[in-house]
Amino acid sequence: MQSESLALHTDKYQINMIYAHWINGTHQRKAVFEAYFRKLPFGNGYAVFAGLERIINYISNLHFTEDNLSYLAKQEENYHPDFLELLRNFRFKGTIHSMAEGAIVFPNEPLLRVEGSILETQLVETALLNFMNFQTLIATKASRVKRVADNDILLEFGTRRAQEADAAVWGARAAYISGFDATSNMLAGELFDIPTKGTHAHSWVQIFDTELEAFEVYAKAMPDQVSLLVDTFDTLQSGVPHAIKTAKMLESMGKRLSSIRLDSGDLAYLSIKARKMLDEAGLPYVKIVASNDLDENTIFNLKSQGAKIDIWGVGTQLITAADQPALGGVYKLVEREKDGKMEPTIKISGNPEKVTSPGKKDVLRLISGEDGKAIADYICFTHEEHARSGGKLRLFDPVHPYIKKTVKDYKTVSMLKLIFEEGKLVYELPNLEDVRKYHQEQLDLFWPEYLRKLNPEKYRVNLSQEAWELKQKMIEDYMNLQED
Amino acid sequence: MQSESLALHTDKYQINMIYAHWINGTHQRKAVFEAYFRKLPFGNGYAVFAGLERIINYISNLHFTEDNLSYLAKQEENYHPDFLELLRNFRFKGTIHSMAEGAIVFPNEPLLRVEGSILETQLVETALLNFMNFQTLIATKASRVKRVADNDILLEFGTRRAQEADAAVWGARAAYISGFDATSNMLAGELFDIPTKGTHAHSWVQIFDTELEAFEVYAKAMPDQVSLLVDTFDTLQSGVPHAIKTAKMLESMGKRLSSIRLDSGDLAYLSIKARKMLDEAGLPYVKIVASNDLDENTIFNLKSQGAKIDIWGVGTQLITAADQPALGGVYKLVEREKDGKMEPTIKISGNPEKVTSPGKKDVLRLISGEDGKAIADYICFTHEEHARSGGKLRLFDPVHPYIKKTVKDYKTVSMLKLIFEEGKLVYELPNLEDVRKYHQEQLDLFWPEYLRKLNPEKYRVNLSQEAWELKQKMIEDYMNLQED
Repeated sequence: MQSESLALHTDKYQINMIYAHWINGTHQRKAVFEAYFRKLPFGNGYAVFAGLERIINYISNLHFTEDNLSYLAKQEENYHPDFLELLRNFRFKGTIHSMAEGAIVFPNEPLLRVEGSILETQLVETALLNFMNFQTLIATKASRVKRVADNDILLEFGTRRAQEADAAVWGARAAYISGFDATSNMLAGELFDIPTKGTHAHSWVQIFDTELEAFEVYAKAMPDQVSLLVDTFDTLQSGVPHAIKTAKMLESMGKRLSSIRLDSGDLAYLSIKARKMLDEAGLPYVKIVASNDLDENTIFNLKSQGAKIDIWGVGTQLITAADQPALGGVYKLVEREKDGKMEPTIKISGNPEKVTSPGKKDVLRLISGEDGKAIADYICFTHEEHARSGGKLRLFDPVHPYIKKTVKDYKTVSMLKLIFEEGKLVYELPNLEDVRKYHQEQLDLFWPEYLRKLNPEKYRVNLSQEAWELKQKMIEDYMNLQED
Repeated sequence: MQSESLALHTDKYQINMIYAHWINGTHQRKAVFEAYFRKLPFGNGYAVFAGLERIINYISNLHFTEDNLSYLAKQEENYHPDFLELLRNFRFKGTIHSMAEGAIVFPNEPLLRVEGSILETQLVETALLNFMNFQTLIATKASRVKRVADNDILLEFGTRRAQEADAAVWGARAAYISGFDATSNMLAGELFDIPTKGTHAHSWVQIFDTELEAFEVYAKAMPDQVSLLVDTFDTLQSGVPHAIKTAKMLESMGKRLSSIRLDSGDLAYLSIKARKMLDEAGLPYVKIVASNDLDENTIFNLKSQGAKIDIWGVGTQLITAADQPALGGVYKLVEREKDGKMEPTIKISGNPEKVTSPGKKDVLRLISGEDGKAIADYICFTHEEHARSGGKLRLFDPVHPYIKKTVKDYKTVSMLKLIFEEGKLVYELPNLEDVRKYHQEQLDLFWPEYLRKLNPEKYRVNLSQEAWELKQKMIEDYMNLQED
């Protein structure tokens, strides 16, 4: 799942463009692309960047196998054999900057910046977007759930409803980055060292003649890790009373029942009743797990109804990001080589928000010297020094000019990290626990207004004056050209 | 992507249940599970079964690697070393029946039936559901698009928005089963021999000084396969006129421009205008491709507005099944071994549609002798001979008894195929073209009323009298037990 070459996990038009450039003799010209999204998912106020580990694996292993090349040789485009020879020797030699996984990110700021030959920058577009879009989407959805669940335990339970195996495994990892505590997927556990958790299914109970027998057999088999699913027949009449008997049996063995799980019915009512029954039986330590199509909204509502749930198993809604199952990340050319020099380039669109911002850009996060909180993200060219050195900055919203702000007392954090430098991996991939810590530190930089689930305050992301002026000039040049 | 062992692509509770059975000495007892879904997605009248090739690969390669076993040895459950030894030697020895890929299927009928030891039937549940749920979902979505597009060409363009790599690749295959003509994903092309198609991106145009230069360079590189994206700057003012000039250049080379692609703006208006411009330029053979967040509803509306589109590129909405991104397939125990004999088992639920149907069942499709069309699906026990031999049948809807029907002149098609027999693969996997043909034959069995996109007629799926009576008896037995 991690080591295979995914060179052909790309759109045919990438291969065709590379081929046409090769025919034209322009495939080695330099290009700079930036990947970003235009709109936050779920009405959330921020997104959580994820996908970098997968991207690093992909780039590191990127090569065309003999099978790949034989396949390409059979295409109706009749690619020239010398072109296939070029691909046979291909290795990625470009430079990639990226947000770190767990970073809090916003629309219209570069999350990845890829510099290199047209050949290599174009080849990797599809896979990079595929990985970044999905993992960022799930990490963001998980972060919404985490905000609501707060200190309750969160379990990722979505594998059977995930969109195939990769989605289950990388989705479990994305959820863990955003604060989930464990997954049910054992492969994700093995690959990424994520804690795994599991109870039992209804089929366990059905195999035995009585629910009580089923519970007792299960408890004896793993007395230190017993969670009992109590809704196979009737939760309050049968499941919970049998779980209580089993807990007493465990106590007689010097052990403790860990939890019961509710998987259907009115989870607020049932959990309150079950909690009362457990407490009255002297079992206050037994936790209650709930599952059944939960998301941040159902959890929020259940908590507000006083549900007595300690652990939430979240499946389908999280692993498919059901209310918005795609993040629309794009990958746009911002600089091209012309006569041996790099120059900015723009894509015009009848749709104003689809006009690109030309030039190679950095993302600087401005942190207040006063309270240590994030003030704004400042998108400026890589050569701009002013903000980096802490100079007085005027932030402006070009569409609504009265929304302006001057900042003086701040420090800047450069958000894009150097990952590959001319093909060499120079970034030390943090372990997953450190990614989680980084994510928490990132959250701590933001006032709660930006993080709330419903109608969050909009965080300020501004282009630098210079970047804004270049964009306007290029639009104007284009308009003049049209009139000629 | 196909050969690795996915033994740990399972939920932890499967491993825990298997372990508890092993401790209890019951892991080798026989069990029968059936997989089915309860509700059709997208308000559609049918679903298209897919996922079997993936399932066959999975089962055939299923084993625990040394890495898997080392990982299991470290779990908090402290699995006994003898248990891990059992897993080390594990191979799937069970029997699997399945719908063929491309089959038209309905709620509450078994799509997969898995018979074997508790160990093996439980281990495979998660992956089987993961594969079946996703691929059936996408094949069904694609089939909806195909019904609307009719004889227009359909291209699958979703990779960058797919939920990770497996979803892109297996989703492309599922779409092809349901009648899509090609995919942009080259890996899907290589793995499954699906035709691949691609045009070029906006970045191709941006690299050059003018759009015309970009078009001409591209056309010269692949003169037999030229599709030009015409919306980088202005579709009607710039893109289409430049495409026409390029087409003329190609004509002077004795070649023909294949198509232009519209990727933004009002696709109805733009395609009508572009068609007129192309026709007036003497280029009636140049096709128009449209893309941009299309699905069956936008295509239906564009066609009704007289859009002149020949080829539809369908991305995000298809590959994520955006309006319902999960199929809720479940896997339920229907028989268990008791004292050396198999007996039916039931799961009761407060939610009536979640009560399972006990016993090992077949799906017989009844085909009218009169008109050759499907009358109903008849779910009966594997030992029931009456329907199979063409005897007069009374179909009844137990909830609405007045909806009854007697059928006499019919033949039956047994829908579940034997795939694995005691661990041995006995099914010859058809090639993908034959799967597509089978799917088309399946569609031809149904009256159009069942296939329409909006408010389809509900197709009849009935339990046999015997299966129905057993279910009622087991519910009653359970109720009596509760009252004792």
